[in-house]
Amino acid sequence: MKAVQYRRVGAAPEVVTVPEPEPGPGEVLLKVTAAGVCHSDIAVMSWPAEQLPFPLPLTLGHEGAGTVAAVGDGVKGLEIGESVAVYGPWGCGTCHLCAQGKENYCLRAEALGIRPPGLGAPGAIAEYLLVDDPRHLVPLGDLDPVRNVPLTDAGLTPYHAIKGALPKLTPGGAAVVIGSGGLGHVGVQLLRALSAVRVIAVDVSEEKLELARTVGAHETVLSDAAAPARIRELTGGLGAQAVFDFVGVPPTVAMATAVAGVEADVAIVGIGGGVAQVQFGVTAYDAAVRAPYWGSRAELMEVLDLARTGAVDVHVETYTIDEAPKAYERLHAGEIDGRAVIVPSA
Amino acid sequence: MKAVQYRRVGAAPEVVTVPEPEPGPGEVLLKVTAAGVCHSDIAVMSWPAEQLPFPLPLTLGHEGAGTVAAVGDGVKGLEIGESVAVYGPWGCGTCHLCAQGKENYCLRAEALGIRPPGLGAPGAIAEYLLVDDPRHLVPLGDLDPVRNVPLTDAGLTPYHAIKGALPKLTPGGAAVVIGSGGLGHVGVQLLRALSAVRVIAVDVSEEKLELARTVGAHETVLSDAAAPARIRELTGGLGAQAVFDFVGVPPTVAMATAVAGVEADVAIVGIGGGVAQVQFGVTAYDAAVRAPYWGSRAELMEVLDLARTGAVDVHVETYTIDEAPKAYERLHAGEIDGRAVIVPSA
Amino acid sequence: MKAVQYRRVGAAPEVVTVPEPEPGPGEVLLKVTAAGVCHSDIAVMSWPAEQLPFPLPLTLGHEGAGTVAAVGDGVKGLEIGESVAVYGPWGCGTCHLCAQGKENYCLRAEALGIRPPGLGAPGAIAEYLLVDDPRHLVPLGDLDPVRNVPLTDAGLTPYHAIKGALPKLTPGGAAVVIGSGGLGHVGVQLLRALSAVRVIAVDVSEEKLELARTVGAHETVLSDAAAPARIRELTGGLGAQAVFDFVGVPPTVAMATAVAGVEADVAIVGIGGGVAQVQFGVTAYDAAVRAPYWGSRAELMEVLDLARTGAVDVHVETYTIDEAPKAYERLHAGEIDGRAVIVPSA
Amino acid sequence: MKAVQYRRVGAAPEVVTVPEPEPGPGEVLLKVTAAGVCHSDIAVMSWPAEQLPFPLPLTLGHEGAGTVAAVGDGVKGLEIGESVAVYGPWGCGTCHLCAQGKENYCLRAEALGIRPPGLGAPGAIAEYLLVDDPRHLVPLGDLDPVRNVPLTDAGLTPYHAIKGALPKLTPGGAAVVIGSGGLGHVGVQLLRALSAVRVIAVDVSEEKLELARTVGAHETVLSDAAAPARIRELTGGLGAQAVFDFVGVPPTVAMATAVAGVEADVAIVGIGGGVAQVQFGVTAYDAAVRAPYWGSRAELMEVLDLARTGAVDVHVETYTIDEAPKAYERLHAGEIDGRAVIVPSA
Repeated sequence: MKAVQYRRVGAAPEVVTVPEPEPGPGEVLLKVTAAGVCHSDIAVMSWPAEQLPFPLPLTLGHEGAGTVAAVGDGVKGLEIGESVAVYGPWGCGTCHLCAQGKENYCLRAEALGIRPPGLGAPGAIAEYLLVDDPRHLVPLGDLDPVRNVPLTDAGLTPYHAIKGALPKLTPGGAAVVIGSGGLGHVGVQLLRALSAVRVIAVDVSEEKLELARTVGAHETVLSDAAAPARIRELTGGLGAQAVFDFVGVPPTVAMATAVAGVEADVAIVGIGGGVAQVQFGVTAYDAAVRAPYWGSRAELMEVLDLARTGAVDVHVETYTIDEAPKAYERLHAGEIDGRAVIVPSA
Repeated sequence: MKAVQYRRVGAAPEVVTVPEPEPGPGEVLLKVTAAGVCHSDIAVMSWPAEQLPFPLPLTLGHEGAGTVAAVGDGVKGLEIGESVAVYGPWGCGTCHLCAQGKENYCLRAEALGIRPPGLGAPGAIAEYLLVDDPRHLVPLGDLDPVRNVPLTDAGLTPYHAIKGALPKLTPGGAAVVIGSGGLGHVGVQLLRALSAVRVIAVDVSEEKLELARTVGAHETVLSDAAAPARIRELTGGLGAQAVFDFVGVPPTVAMATAVAGVEADVAIVGIGGGVAQVQFGVTAYDAAVRAPYWGSRAELMEVLDLARTGAVDVHVETYTIDEAPKAYERLHAGEIDGRAVIVPSA
Repeated sequence: MKAVQYRRVGAAPEVVTVPEPEPGPGEVLLKVTAAGVCHSDIAVMSWPAEQLPFPLPLTLGHEGAGTVAAVGDGVKGLEIGESVAVYGPWGCGTCHLCAQGKENYCLRAEALGIRPPGLGAPGAIAEYLLVDDPRHLVPLGDLDPVRNVPLTDAGLTPYHAIKGALPKLTPGGAAVVIGSGGLGHVGVQLLRALSAVRVIAVDVSEEKLELARTVGAHETVLSDAAAPARIRELTGGLGAQAVFDFVGVPPTVAMATAVAGVEADVAIVGIGGGVAQVQFGVTAYDAAVRAPYWGSRAELMEVLDLARTGAVDVHVETYTIDEAPKAYERLHAGEIDGRAVIVPSA
Repeated sequence: MKAVQYRRVGAAPEVVTVPEPEPGPGEVLLKVTAAGVCHSDIAVMSWPAEQLPFPLPLTLGHEGAGTVAAVGDGVKGLEIGESVAVYGPWGCGTCHLCAQGKENYCLRAEALGIRPPGLGAPGAIAEYLLVDDPRHLVPLGDLDPVRNVPLTDAGLTPYHAIKGALPKLTPGGAAVVIGSGGLGHVGVQLLRALSAVRVIAVDVSEEKLELARTVGAHETVLSDAAAPARIRELTGGLGAQAVFDFVGVPPTVAMATAVAGVEADVAIVGIGGGVAQVQFGVTAYDAAVRAPYWGSRAELMEVLDLARTGAVDVHVETYTIDEAPKAYERLHAGEIDGRAVIVPSA
């Protein structure tokens, strides 16, 4: 079958032919209907060999959806042909956090060498995808796999970050979304659907801010040196109740903590190498700064349920498997608006 | 192998010989080291045929521990001989609640005919027990299976009820434990370990109250018509922040709501047929009355971790498999102090 | 000054002339700009003398707004002429619950004889209203007092009930609002603003259901014997995650518990004498049934902030003080659509 | 009356004679029974003039207790002679956070120039103390003011930090207390009383660690370069569920984030100028780092209730007013074990 692989450190992804996998006991084989292309793939492909936590070649794609093609011995509760989305942050399934469905925070995955598809295990940008356990599948039902496959990461990651902040988001407050690209433009929609706070979007270009307004931001602020003061002003001097930094570079994390109000929640989501600082007397009292990662199994179900209500809509561009390398190129060049999705059957 | 079965509606449990089960793909066979005898078995055996939600004969025992004897295809992460406890409230593993490890509240178990061991599936009072999935096992490590097997129900059930109430249990408050038998005497210990509130135990005999004091109750109250007034007095007229009714008969549920203070949590845990009433202007404002059931996978781990600290100690009497029918008789007669445990190897 | 009083048990309210009050130390005198007429006044006026917890005559009106007319010694932070809403459930201000602003649950109000304006203390349906402490005032700013005065009860009460249920209201779930009149039609709007769940409104007339749809209900169900089954069907057989009964009569509280799903929150808000029942094996597992009352100081601020965003809009009919007895008559006859508001200056 | 004042920047505190204050409307005059001496006073006295947020001279003492000596007009609910503790972090009383009793986080205190006694307003190290509002008093009842006055800060501050972390503190987990002096040795006791986690105390001297063990720490670790690895080891490689840094200097805040596990709570409480860092991929996933300050009104009540159960015991040394300057000297020199308390009547 065709697969898109990262084969040598520093090289561009290539379309290759690899053997079609077969499901062992407890495993599930999916015929891929859609697979998302993500910035973090590009980050991983920029790492030097010694930092790479898995061997090459690697089939890319950690956002996947498909139809059940075959199941291994002992697999119950799935029908051949059923349309499903893949929960990506695979864990051991039995530690204290996996037992709550928080496999993104599995306490033993590293020790056991368990890694997500596309980030260590063979990924979804291929004709078929092998899934290690049926618990990592969520039924899509009538949801379009192409439009919704990005929700498995670009939806789940902001959802998880926002859900942790919801108790802070009382009416009268404000939430700041830094970066209104792939994750950020979903984050704005989630905040509008899940709370009644004012949503302030921040980005470096007027074009991205226009997208933020289109998907529901109440206010938009150009990301420059004046932005923190502007956000303070928009929040009556008090700062925001929550800040979500989907960029995560040094200037944005500094902004994130600077605009946080008392008891705020500050989530550094973007993997941009920024280091947030917390200091008594400088950071607002009890503003909690954290770096969440992906989301839980139940949260993926909730995001998909939200999509069913029409509250979340991801802007996607589609590509064939053969065009996947081009999609990565365009993403790298900042030319993708929303999210690129590979459709193997196209 | 030997097994203790409930074979005909209304009949007493019998020791019988049945084929030793073999694990299919994804399943685990345990050599049983300990199995608890529980009041709810007696309740189930009192039901008429039309109420019984599963066919007979049924091997009894929903509290089980064992060592791994064999694993089916595809099972990873277990070693033969490993000592484990069984998480009993089996669910589908994939619904929104199972995805959080709350299999006790599985949304599909009933539709799929999934039932706990000893309450539909073959139970633990036998030489071997077949477990449907490794996720239903929690490592015991050095914990003595005999002393700790009751924690899988008589520990997990009060733990789950209490955990839901913890945010209410601020210092200066009080918690009432109605019934200080199997579950109640564990509940008192859990409340002492997990909070700083005053624990008031209520029971019908001075002997049971003595046990409650021994395991840590600050106050004990004889369960009679004067009890509610006495509890009000002990709580400065305000009522308790939490009430756990481990009996659940009509007079105790009435007491439970009567002694609840404003914003209290009232958990009706005992299956005694009592109906709690909530009425504006009669029940304290915002006192929440609920009927929880068993507990989650993560909570079972937490209870066992608590046992490791020495904070929970179950009083057990041990019996051989052949003596199991006698253990049920004694339990029915109210002659068991603490918990009866069947030890197949004894 | 003119005031509308309940003067004799069983008699209709009357417009009378009473002395204008003067603020003592720490007190505030308001010139009333608007005062709401509420069902609970009618309930109170139906009580026999022995049930009445305060002496007559009583100036009515527990929903009040006004401008600061005068302040007593020691009052700081208020300006003469400032427009404010009155927080009605006055408490002692210093007990453990008042110290959290939950004066609606004051632990000492009854012992100290502290009662809300219009429900024991002289109420807001008068030209002037004496407020015991500046902490019971919330600035209205530009909010229209006439349209928003009902939020002090008809907004705050459902807000408080809903806020307690928010953690349960994950996407994919449903909330049921029973009764879409004064409180219910605000409740529907609050649920839409604060969550992404499907809102199912239930009422006895197609006309009321039409109002529910207008303010945002996704589904409406006629309140009859078939309603619970219909709601189960609308929730995929699972029941709702939250139920708010703003009627509280025996058939509605029975419906409320019957349609609650596992772990649901059930709030009995209406004062209709219904008694909700909680029974193991009958009520859904861990569905918590409670009877909340009014709301906290911070919650009133949040409701008013929500009104500022346009998310809540109360339908009001206005009356002069002289017309107030007629407003009560019409409310009693079920002829008021939304909420009646007395405007003394009209 | 005698008072201990900080009179000139950089100068030592002096005993002076000042006029006895008189309570205006709404105010309360206390005859001081006990006043605590705190490290933060020394920090404040080390600041240069331009950093000092209030004018001199200043009567010191932000931990105060007394008996009601006189009340101003309009004050209700207090009896002359009643023994009370003073809630120190005074706020406006009416903003959204003060309305929840979180006056420590008042949104308007700075703008209104409201400051705590001893940190801007005249403090408690004097014969009499003027309190601006009865809501800032909590009845002590039979509690000894001398032994318990430190709970108003050295108890309330760790209690507030710990209470925010309690949901993380499930059995099987661990909490790290860095610094086992004034606040830390209370923190250890609070953690033991409020949770069942293992408590690991860290300090620079074996003597301080001995105190930590005496008050209940399960494990103690000498604060050096090897400490983080030792703590990881004690937590099975997973890190702690909560870390409380009562020192707050650069090396301790670095240790605090280094030993935090996934989803941990990290509270930087000590004012030592350290800057904690949060970075994706370096800090454990979702570990939340915050800098809390003092505590809420309700929390002070809870701490005092905890003291009533005997769960918290502060080691105190007593001094007369005349000896207060010496107490500050000894505290500065690190010679005070536990807490110094000034007793004016001694």
